[in-house]
Amino acid sequence: MNPLSTRALKNLIRETGARASRGAARELARSLEDIAWDIAERSRDLAEHAGRRTIKEKDIRFAVREIREND
Amino acid sequence: MNPLSTRALKNLIRETGARASRGAARELARSLEDIAWDIAERSRDLAEHAGRRTIKEKDIRFAVREIREND
Repeated sequence: MNPLSTRALKNLIRETGARASRGAARELARSLEDIAWDIAERSRDLAEHAGRRTIKEKDIRFAVREIREND
Repeated sequence: MNPLSTRALKNLIRETGARASRGAARELARSLEDIAWDIAERSRDLAEHAGRRTIKEKDIRFAVREIREND
């Protein structure tokens, strides 16, 4: 499964005003997929903690906040 | 621009063993796009710091490491 388009991420990098090597865009795609896994697993644990089997938007937000507050 | 497929991210969430509401998958897509921006801008600054105008794979890795080490 490849949820992240390397081409789209190359365009995103360019929008910051920089050029991007192909390897950079691929690395960004790989990293984001890892981060997506972390967020999803954390969200699953948060949903289970709340007695649910379905992840809700608020679980994602909670999980992301934990990651980014430490940023 | 939408570099992240909500459908693919819903599948990713399901692979953790949980169910996902549609709102959850959308929120994950939004969050990842924000994170992608942070990584791209940080990488641009790192490339400039190194006297380059092109972001390389190693800039992305450095930027991601900074974010995730605080995780």
